[in-house]
Amino acid sequence: MKKKLNVGMVGYGFMGRTHSNAFGKAGNFFELPFQPVLKTICARNLERAQAFASNWGYEKVETDWRKLVESPEIDLVDIASPNDTHLEIAVAAARAGKMVMCEKPLGRNAAESEQMVAAVEAAGVANMVWYNYRRVPAVMLAKQLIDEGRLGRIFHYRAKFLQDWTISTDLPQGGEGLWRLDRSVAGSGVTGDLLAHTIDTAMWLNGGIDEVSAMTETFIKSRKHNLTGEVAPVTIDDASLALARFRNGSLATFEATRYARGHKALYTLEINGENASIMWDLHDLHRLEYFDHKDEGLLRGWKSIHITDREHPYMSHWWVPGLQIGYEHTFVHQVADFLTALGEGKSASPNFREAMATDDVTDAVLESAAKKQWVKVRAR
Amino acid sequence: MKKKLNVGMVGYGFMGRTHSNAFGKAGNFFELPFQPVLKTICARNLERAQAFASNWGYEKVETDWRKLVESPEIDLVDIASPNDTHLEIAVAAARAGKMVMCEKPLGRNAAESEQMVAAVEAAGVANMVWYNYRRVPAVMLAKQLIDEGRLGRIFHYRAKFLQDWTISTDLPQGGEGLWRLDRSVAGSGVTGDLLAHTIDTAMWLNGGIDEVSAMTETFIKSRKHNLTGEVAPVTIDDASLALARFRNGSLATFEATRYARGHKALYTLEINGENASIMWDLHDLHRLEYFDHKDEGLLRGWKSIHITDREHPYMSHWWVPGLQIGYEHTFVHQVADFLTALGEGKSASPNFREAMATDDVTDAVLESAAKKQWVKVRAR
Amino acid sequence: MKKKLNVGMVGYGFMGRTHSNAFGKAGNFFELPFQPVLKTICARNLERAQAFASNWGYEKVETDWRKLVESPEIDLVDIASPNDTHLEIAVAAARAGKMVMCEKPLGRNAAESEQMVAAVEAAGVANMVWYNYRRVPAVMLAKQLIDEGRLGRIFHYRAKFLQDWTISTDLPQGGEGLWRLDRSVAGSGVTGDLLAHTIDTAMWLNGGIDEVSAMTETFIKSRKHNLTGEVAPVTIDDASLALARFRNGSLATFEATRYARGHKALYTLEINGENASIMWDLHDLHRLEYFDHKDEGLLRGWKSIHITDREHPYMSHWWVPGLQIGYEHTFVHQVADFLTALGEGKSASPNFREAMATDDVTDAVLESAAKKQWVKVRAR
Amino acid sequence: MKKKLNVGMVGYGFMGRTHSNAFGKAGNFFELPFQPVLKTICARNLERAQAFASNWGYEKVETDWRKLVESPEIDLVDIASPNDTHLEIAVAAARAGKMVMCEKPLGRNAAESEQMVAAVEAAGVANMVWYNYRRVPAVMLAKQLIDEGRLGRIFHYRAKFLQDWTISTDLPQGGEGLWRLDRSVAGSGVTGDLLAHTIDTAMWLNGGIDEVSAMTETFIKSRKHNLTGEVAPVTIDDASLALARFRNGSLATFEATRYARGHKALYTLEINGENASIMWDLHDLHRLEYFDHKDEGLLRGWKSIHITDREHPYMSHWWVPGLQIGYEHTFVHQVADFLTALGEGKSASPNFREAMATDDVTDAVLESAAKKQWVKVRAR
Repeated sequence: MKKKLNVGMVGYGFMGRTHSNAFGKAGNFFELPFQPVLKTICARNLERAQAFASNWGYEKVETDWRKLVESPEIDLVDIASPNDTHLEIAVAAARAGKMVMCEKPLGRNAAESEQMVAAVEAAGVANMVWYNYRRVPAVMLAKQLIDEGRLGRIFHYRAKFLQDWTISTDLPQGGEGLWRLDRSVAGSGVTGDLLAHTIDTAMWLNGGIDEVSAMTETFIKSRKHNLTGEVAPVTIDDASLALARFRNGSLATFEATRYARGHKALYTLEINGENASIMWDLHDLHRLEYFDHKDEGLLRGWKSIHITDREHPYMSHWWVPGLQIGYEHTFVHQVADFLTALGEGKSASPNFREAMATDDVTDAVLESAAKKQWVKVRAR
Repeated sequence: MKKKLNVGMVGYGFMGRTHSNAFGKAGNFFELPFQPVLKTICARNLERAQAFASNWGYEKVETDWRKLVESPEIDLVDIASPNDTHLEIAVAAARAGKMVMCEKPLGRNAAESEQMVAAVEAAGVANMVWYNYRRVPAVMLAKQLIDEGRLGRIFHYRAKFLQDWTISTDLPQGGEGLWRLDRSVAGSGVTGDLLAHTIDTAMWLNGGIDEVSAMTETFIKSRKHNLTGEVAPVTIDDASLALARFRNGSLATFEATRYARGHKALYTLEINGENASIMWDLHDLHRLEYFDHKDEGLLRGWKSIHITDREHPYMSHWWVPGLQIGYEHTFVHQVADFLTALGEGKSASPNFREAMATDDVTDAVLESAAKKQWVKVRAR
Repeated sequence: MKKKLNVGMVGYGFMGRTHSNAFGKAGNFFELPFQPVLKTICARNLERAQAFASNWGYEKVETDWRKLVESPEIDLVDIASPNDTHLEIAVAAARAGKMVMCEKPLGRNAAESEQMVAAVEAAGVANMVWYNYRRVPAVMLAKQLIDEGRLGRIFHYRAKFLQDWTISTDLPQGGEGLWRLDRSVAGSGVTGDLLAHTIDTAMWLNGGIDEVSAMTETFIKSRKHNLTGEVAPVTIDDASLALARFRNGSLATFEATRYARGHKALYTLEINGENASIMWDLHDLHRLEYFDHKDEGLLRGWKSIHITDREHPYMSHWWVPGLQIGYEHTFVHQVADFLTALGEGKSASPNFREAMATDDVTDAVLESAAKKQWVKVRAR
Repeated sequence: MKKKLNVGMVGYGFMGRTHSNAFGKAGNFFELPFQPVLKTICARNLERAQAFASNWGYEKVETDWRKLVESPEIDLVDIASPNDTHLEIAVAAARAGKMVMCEKPLGRNAAESEQMVAAVEAAGVANMVWYNYRRVPAVMLAKQLIDEGRLGRIFHYRAKFLQDWTISTDLPQGGEGLWRLDRSVAGSGVTGDLLAHTIDTAMWLNGGIDEVSAMTETFIKSRKHNLTGEVAPVTIDDASLALARFRNGSLATFEATRYARGHKALYTLEINGENASIMWDLHDLHRLEYFDHKDEGLLRGWKSIHITDREHPYMSHWWVPGLQIGYEHTFVHQVADFLTALGEGKSASPNFREAMATDDVTDAVLESAAKKQWVKVRAR
């Protein structure tokens, strides 16, 4: 009989759904040492929390996260609420001895993240941040190929995360469902929301970043705020672009924007090595493009690998070759990896400390853009 | 409080998993009038059935399908066992007054299907066959576009279902996990397994088929059978190709094979109308390719539509634009549609009678190939 | 100093342009034993012939092809005029001892082609038919790979040639620029025009075809004829589809149509072998898609080979890697191959006899469609 | 009778071939006011120059460019020799009253370009620089769409020019056929060679660039030089990346490298506007990808336009829909546009002054990379 692991979830938004689904499904597809139980959902709006609990099978509803954190029946606190709540909840949960999982970005900036890292490390509790794109099977395969040295010396890395959902001037800049557009809540605009994903993957695949030169822009200068009803200056970054130099000497471009008409969530990455290159694209997440210079010259080309075979990462747990999985499965994989690591007494990657390194880079990006100069990334 | 609907599942193989997942997940993402309960799993091997039950949360295990069918606590019998069991179980379940869902193909031939149709219609029970590819959002969108008349007069339909998993001469022709290669169990080879999918979608999108000229082939003439241990002649069709004429006057090619090196499960369809054309491909199931001749001439081209927007079929129930779903979701949609229809006192499409029409075509295909002549599809 | 080779061209239409360009350009890019000279253009309309001569640098103009054929200063007669003129001109040219090149299809049917073959073989003159798509570098590479045995046993061949330019009901069915729609001139509709290309390539790559079952259709039943001004029944085939069995046991589908909305000249071919598969597409003619099952399992996929490297067929004569060539170059290659073969005392492939074999298949296709039964291809 | 225009070509390398082909072919496909005559080829190596003349039909050979420039029978001097010769030849040709065409980049830096601009403007002679990618039909169509205002306000521009041909450490850094790797000859590495193309197109499509922040790298630090035989430090830039801000407020990334394994000549550009977006890719130069937000929501997607219709730029001069042209045609278009403009007493774009603006940007890029700070582009 598997040991049960009681989950207390904070937040019922988009991320609350992906996490709840992941906790519910992981055990059907992976052999795990723990059986997660959706114990308690916590949110300020009682009625909605109850509806959410009913839909996902949470046993209890709580409106005060402090009670959740302190509840003896909770083993793990999962923070899926807006960015401005991460610090306080995570620190309290760690102090209460709970395992903590937190949506990305960890803090609104590295200073917040530092406190969270300190708290979980002082408490010695398992911790993880939901940079879910690492667990796309194609991206995990890229990681394997790089770690095996197949690419050789790395020359170039380029990543973009392009969206277009905020182009309309009629869109408000905050309030219900729109907190990502409110700097006080989110910490930053696309830098923390989208660029952070590209940075997390990049450092995981290609090592630390040494320095950046960045540029940000706010295209629509003022918008109505739904909470105040006032039209006010927009303070988030709509677009964030950076040149970067990795510690291994490779060069990079990073770009995130919500003003790239025609792209919904186009996270693409490419890495060019001496011997081989890799491309991946979130809009076709079940494919990996691979070029191997060691192939016979006559037949060299980019190979489109349909990542649905049993030998591909995670895929032996799903269907049969040719049948693709989707976005939500990355969260299931993250739960599976977390619980597997837990069975071995470890935290799964990225833990809070690793996620803080991403905040160090996004902080440097914002500072570089503000000062219009190259900025060294803090080395810890 | 939703009414519970107790499911008795027969079969724990690949399809047992997809169906169990669908019953479990549908309620999380769709507002449904019934809450399916995974009541009983039935399979001959008790130990495996217990493991399956434990994994998916079935309350009970049964090794004799007759007991399942007759159990008063079962509302719906779902048949996910090999083709040679469909007839007997479905007829018994109908006679016992149960709703019946059945994996495709309905019977091993139209004669079997006729008996099943008669049984469910006599019993007046809700019934459906799992031709799941209709519920790919992109395919459902194709259906909408065609039904709205956007394509105009249809000239051409072409579909293929290409696999390559049986090329090795070492592969046995039957036994554990390989019943699809055993004609006595499966009824036919690729004709009933793969071509049937292409025929079901085709008739749903483009109406009835009038006549066919077909060709089948068995490339590897003898293989070992795992149950007998003997090397024996292979009697299934490895490949099945057909020309066809639809009742609306359009022309078609259909092809199914397990010998198309490089293709895992490449189900593709294309339909060319006077005004517009559509292409779709299971290997990128979240996209629909659309060409509209009414577009401005200078800018005409094939549009790749990423079927992840809220206004796309089924997609408002999942994530946000740009984030794709996968194969398993088609089964979730089928459960959702079945339960929704049930709430309205109807069967969801394709019911047994509709699925029998597909068997009429595959029967004609096999007869045409055997006789080397054009064969009229039975008109009922 | 290279020997000059005087070309007499019959026809100044689309094919007259492609051939003239090819004769003019081949020497700039290939080291050839002969220098073609555009000596005489022959066409019934003197004024247009003169304009064409002036544009392309022909030295003389002739309005009677008999004079061209008999002119002692002509070494090679190139027939780029409508299909109903091929027989008479080719036979006369051969009898006059000229080398003969002829646009495809060779005759309007195999009976005509037989007479042409007899004439060139009796005269012992070099001869070739312009099935230009063999000389697309990607297609030539496919030929090399197949001939090297890389695909192993062949299971499947499928080819389509899809156009959409005759869908409008307003289009006349013959006259100036429209002779391809007039059966008395063209011999047939898409079968001789488009399907013939797919058959020529198929037999070149995969050997002889044994039998076919075909279906043709004329979607628009009557159209105005521009020469008579009368609305009359349409007698050409608008679409032509066939199942076929090759002599090597592989199965095929062939399809040609001018009613596939969205496709301009989409000639695609795919061949599936035991070990590898190949796809090619005229709309991106500079690419070859290749799947090799012998690749490492983890990284198997379809490779898109950009056929622009020096080691690719013909490409060392053009630009540098990455820079593509186009449609017209296939004709340049054909001239280069013809002249090179000539220097060795040979005809380049396909010669008239080889092209007649394609007419044997298209004849069988039309007979099969008319009789609605399988037809054996004439074996010579 | 057309007026003849005598061309004197300097250089017989790769660019000498593309230009010679263009002068030879333009008149076959375009109705032009002048007939170019390949009069004289000038190169230091007499034997090779003679072979080149024989191959392309030049009437004369010259080994001293000064004689060419002063020859009264030459109307137009075309400079296709290495970058370090552009200044001297162009200035002398202009002073001799010749029209001047020059390969890109115009000078090795803007200071050289200034002298060339001054010379042609003082002489009042027609002049043009061969930034040939403007004349890709798809790129020209992009220009039309942008100029018609279809994209609306522009937010983003991104361009890359990726190659991989210098990765091997065995490659020398200069000498025969390798002058692009020698800074003293080329002026810079990829910045002047590849980035310059992306800058020229970008400013033509999207207006002037205000400021840049750039980074360059030399990955292989020393290589043998073929002229000296010595191993010496490499001084060219192997890679060049820049962030930029256009005068219209849009943001850009530019990247050029010869170390992107798997890419031969992958020049890609994308431009995102408020209403529509465009992508183009040199590896499939006959396609334009277009997204129009004004399309019906249900069917929005990226359209792949096969730029082969008569109404597409330049394409009415070539073949029929579906049949693609290639790289060399961009030079033919440039000749056609130059001669057409000449007939109207104008220079075709980009003239020397326009090309100098590109050098202003590449100078700024190199300065920014050297100083590690943002640099304003010189405004003239």
